[in-house]
Amino acid sequence: MRFKFPLMAIGLELAMIVLFGLFVQYETDQNILQQLNITKPTDMGGFLELYPLFQDVHVMIFVGFGFLMTFLKKYGFSSVGINLLIAALGLQWGTIAQGILHSHGQKINIGIKNMINADFSTATVLISFGAVLGKTSPVQMLIMTIIEIAVFAGNEYLVGEIFMASDIGASMTIHAFGAYFGLAVAGVLYRSGLRSGHENEESVYHSDLFAMIGTLFLWMFWPSFNSAIAEAGDKQYRAIVNTYFSLAACVITAYAFSSLVEHRGKLDMVHIQNATLAGGVAVGTCADMAIRPFGSMIIGSIAGILSVFGYKFLTPLFATKLRIHDTCGVHNLHGLPGMMGGLAGIVAVAMGASDTSTMAMQAAALGSSIGTAVVGGLITGLILKLPVWSQPSDQNCFDDSLYWEVPRWREHDNHVHGLGDHNQLEPEI
Amino acid sequence: MRFKFPLMAIGLELAMIVLFGLFVQYETDQNILQQLNITKPTDMGGFLELYPLFQDVHVMIFVGFGFLMTFLKKYGFSSVGINLLIAALGLQWGTIAQGILHSHGQKINIGIKNMINADFSTATVLISFGAVLGKTSPVQMLIMTIIEIAVFAGNEYLVGEIFMASDIGASMTIHAFGAYFGLAVAGVLYRSGLRSGHENEESVYHSDLFAMIGTLFLWMFWPSFNSAIAEAGDKQYRAIVNTYFSLAACVITAYAFSSLVEHRGKLDMVHIQNATLAGGVAVGTCADMAIRPFGSMIIGSIAGILSVFGYKFLTPLFATKLRIHDTCGVHNLHGLPGMMGGLAGIVAVAMGASDTSTMAMQAAALGSSIGTAVVGGLITGLILKLPVWSQPSDQNCFDDSLYWEVPRWREHDNHVHGLGDHNQLEPEI
Amino acid sequence: MRFKFPLMAIGLELAMIVLFGLFVQYETDQNILQQLNITKPTDMGGFLELYPLFQDVHVMIFVGFGFLMTFLKKYGFSSVGINLLIAALGLQWGTIAQGILHSHGQKINIGIKNMINADFSTATVLISFGAVLGKTSPVQMLIMTIIEIAVFAGNEYLVGEIFMASDIGASMTIHAFGAYFGLAVAGVLYRSGLRSGHENEESVYHSDLFAMIGTLFLWMFWPSFNSAIAEAGDKQYRAIVNTYFSLAACVITAYAFSSLVEHRGKLDMVHIQNATLAGGVAVGTCADMAIRPFGSMIIGSIAGILSVFGYKFLTPLFATKLRIHDTCGVHNLHGLPGMMGGLAGIVAVAMGASDTSTMAMQAAALGSSIGTAVVGGLITGLILKLPVWSQPSDQNCFDDSLYWEVPRWREHDNHVHGLGDHNQLEPEI
Repeated sequence: MRFKFPLMAIGLELAMIVLFGLFVQYETDQNILQQLNITKPTDMGGFLELYPLFQDVHVMIFVGFGFLMTFLKKYGFSSVGINLLIAALGLQWGTIAQGILHSHGQKINIGIKNMINADFSTATVLISFGAVLGKTSPVQMLIMTIIEIAVFAGNEYLVGEIFMASDIGASMTIHAFGAYFGLAVAGVLYRSGLRSGHENEESVYHSDLFAMIGTLFLWMFWPSFNSAIAEAGDKQYRAIVNTYFSLAACVITAYAFSSLVEHRGKLDMVHIQNATLAGGVAVGTCADMAIRPFGSMIIGSIAGILSVFGYKFLTPLFATKLRIHDTCGVHNLHGLPGMMGGLAGIVAVAMGASDTSTMAMQAAALGSSIGTAVVGGLITGLILKLPVWSQPSDQNCFDDSLYWEVPRWREHDNHVHGLGDHNQLEPEI
Repeated sequence: MRFKFPLMAIGLELAMIVLFGLFVQYETDQNILQQLNITKPTDMGGFLELYPLFQDVHVMIFVGFGFLMTFLKKYGFSSVGINLLIAALGLQWGTIAQGILHSHGQKINIGIKNMINADFSTATVLISFGAVLGKTSPVQMLIMTIIEIAVFAGNEYLVGEIFMASDIGASMTIHAFGAYFGLAVAGVLYRSGLRSGHENEESVYHSDLFAMIGTLFLWMFWPSFNSAIAEAGDKQYRAIVNTYFSLAACVITAYAFSSLVEHRGKLDMVHIQNATLAGGVAVGTCADMAIRPFGSMIIGSIAGILSVFGYKFLTPLFATKLRIHDTCGVHNLHGLPGMMGGLAGIVAVAMGASDTSTMAMQAAALGSSIGTAVVGGLITGLILKLPVWSQPSDQNCFDDSLYWEVPRWREHDNHVHGLGDHNQLEPEI
Repeated sequence: MRFKFPLMAIGLELAMIVLFGLFVQYETDQNILQQLNITKPTDMGGFLELYPLFQDVHVMIFVGFGFLMTFLKKYGFSSVGINLLIAALGLQWGTIAQGILHSHGQKINIGIKNMINADFSTATVLISFGAVLGKTSPVQMLIMTIIEIAVFAGNEYLVGEIFMASDIGASMTIHAFGAYFGLAVAGVLYRSGLRSGHENEESVYHSDLFAMIGTLFLWMFWPSFNSAIAEAGDKQYRAIVNTYFSLAACVITAYAFSSLVEHRGKLDMVHIQNATLAGGVAVGTCADMAIRPFGSMIIGSIAGILSVFGYKFLTPLFATKLRIHDTCGVHNLHGLPGMMGGLAGIVAVAMGASDTSTMAMQAAALGSSIGTAVVGGLITGLILKLPVWSQPSDQNCFDDSLYWEVPRWREHDNHVHGLGDHNQLEPEI
């Protein structure tokens, strides 16, 4: 990656600056007045009211997703580092991609909801990143960020503006979309050389604790994720309450079934780190609907069970039968629960919990999200497969030292700084 | 714990769903209007105004308490993991237990204060968890969660509604209560086999750093804890300001006395992780009173000193003379400072800092909190002592591998995944 | 440090309590009315509106700065622990030092902006702490805290009240000031014995991950830092938006140039941990001005490049030619970008982005900030050089065990608790 990575990054940042110069402006009273031809000043106070929710989402994106992926023993720098890189590029590009579609050719006025949506758009890429974690280069991730967010913005526009479907917590447009996009990419990039596993694809004790930092910040702030762009008042209130109780219920079933599926009844950190979050995904679509707190707890409970079963039975099956290797198991945390969220939304609409959507709209949204994700992911996978993007060799997968200067692991190891050969590492921590 | 744990967890979650279905509803304008027979719409905006304080408390419960207990070298998974389990169950059960008492037979309307109180009620159990950390099973913790929150809700109702005492930051009803409840349980469960210590009951370098994550998030967000349910306006403002300065003063004396009590003047991480927080506990009862900033600093300073002395002199005494082994030293962080907070409340009321409480009310609240805690803890301890709850043997205490699939500690260790014998562990990190 | 440290700490805390008793009171309606002789009640609601921004800044100070410095393999306790000590003392002293200057002899009324400013004033000392990290004693840091905050408060008053300059994100008054103050101290305290490096002055794998916790919380909450005390409305809104996009752009160039300057194109954790934040510093002065989002991205992009170049080329030069050893490279994260922020402010004013400041005011503010910092730092360095403050010997630098009880690093090491000889440590983690 001697020059490809830095030159591509610089080129992309220059492009972002040009695009922002052309299309983006402040949301000021004057702008709004000009456009709407009205005299009522905008309420800038509304910016500060949603700002804490934006910051919660911000923490989920950068600390939550970043640390959740640090579970691999030798891939923590890349997990948290490339997560930061993807998100920083993605929020700029997402501002443009979503903004242009929603502003209908006008200038994009940056408000708090644009910033929340920009962070949201990066989430899709970070979910997909989980599927290919350890098997791709930073250059490939820059390319995936650009393509995926463009496709995401298109599908999100379709779902929200054309189908007029409800998906306030983005179970379909972010979680299912990100998961199936990533799985499609992972399928195209399948490495038969890793069929029987890789010695680096495992955790050590402290890497699992680092991952719990990610889990907890995702878990705690998920009510903000599902409510940040909800309609103020009852809907936003319900999105918070429903997500809070769905997640609590999900924790209990995830723990119970993690213990049940293991033959001696022990808990598995992979389940605790991930399946405890499935309740936030699954309640996303109908979070702002009047599904009642116990309804959200039923959704969360089922999601926790589903996710544990996914990790236990589907992930191995995918790897062997479908030739799709899903490093973080994003199918179990985002794919299945996201799809379940879409279906729960259809059921909730059928039961009259929403007065603005129909079952058909919801079904179209679910189909469109999965369809565009798979097609977009396959095309992206083919592009990323071109042998010019500094992909790691099979042997170098799941190893930071290929792209990072890695310090010694503990005192008596050979110091690798400057040696240039990551194979000399004796990673003993 | 092959089936006991999962079946009990599933049963409890099913019970929660049924209870929520029967008793819990959204706080909507319509509900309120029906009940109060008035026409003024509720201010849903108030929900968002307190939401950031709720999220701060949320972080304290899940990251604060969770990581604070990761200091043990081989018990990090359980500390942060069982903390999550207890809190997720506790917030559901606390919603019901507190809600039923306060709604006087009406339906429970979920507002932001219910969510804050639900998180609060879990804090009592997490404090008690600290006293028995490493010596109990997940099954035992599920049972303790259910009993302790029920007793807590009863005492909290007594203190707030019958005695009409002030305890805004819950020095008495949460901190002293949780500590003495936990100590009573620990006393009943005393293991004479661990009288001379256990090789796993110690920290390693990085486990102490993980614990500092917990310390800092508790420390920073404590002003939110003490003010979240305070009366809007002056009282809430004072609760924030007093807690802020009490904690700052407490840090200085905790550092000074940590150095003073060690014979060579070095700082002890146990004191820094815990005693620096005592100022938040001790100022809790009178946090919203007009005690002046310098008054809160005096309270914080004394609390820091008291807590360090507790760790240095009382904890060993408790273990040897009283046969109460307090793993995290919750007596020094929550018990003593909580009792001091209750006494400070009496003094503050005597000096005229409150116009809504009397010394007698405050004294009754303190007595009731400690009394119900000790009685409730003794009964709970006896129940937990029944030899059917998968308790760890003395040898297996303070060891994650009894209840968790634990990865190897570093590269060249034997991999224990799937071996099923945690004694083969060579924990070398 | 047998008695010097605890006695000095106790003396300082007593002094703070006396000063607070004399000068500090609540901001109540009554106070305000008495002083202003008006009848309009203050808006206590404004307190809660800014409280989330205060908490973000609070997290930056305690978790952000604290963990950012944990990158050293054997100095994590001191990094996060002495950071807490400095900040807890500093926020009390900063309340007094800034309050007295701004209240013009009246009592200091504690509002949310005083609390934000108190946290800000500690940031200067924490930045300077980074320059001398590992080479000073806790006693020295107590002294530096007292002197530096006094000088900071004087310069801040000069910049804001006399020069009437704009510096909303404090590029000049905090970042440049803190950096050059620290560099001046480091220059006076230069140890020629460490000219060829020290074996402890390096990271291990997991200490670099701990440092990323600090990096991310600083990065995410920087928009709050730059906007917390901005004028409500458009200016505060712009401060948030500009900082958000400046930081995003900065990440991309920091990654690109980190890879470019390394001869094999690998990423360097030191750059990722630090240079990604330079965009927040550099946009500080003009954050609330109408520089347009793409303008802030240009500033951020340049700051990222500048900071990486600083780490790569200036830090070694400083150490060898100027005899200034800058442990954390604060010159590259705070010094250069802070100076660039001051210059960007001048340019922005020249281009008409502010209607309240002039180029001359801005230039005077930049000169004053750097001038007072260097003079203050030199004097402080001379005081700290007196051989009575328990300085570590050259050999004991960058080693927690000099001032802390340090647990064993992993299982089979000798346990050092109570042995009293840190040299017996075999730090193997």
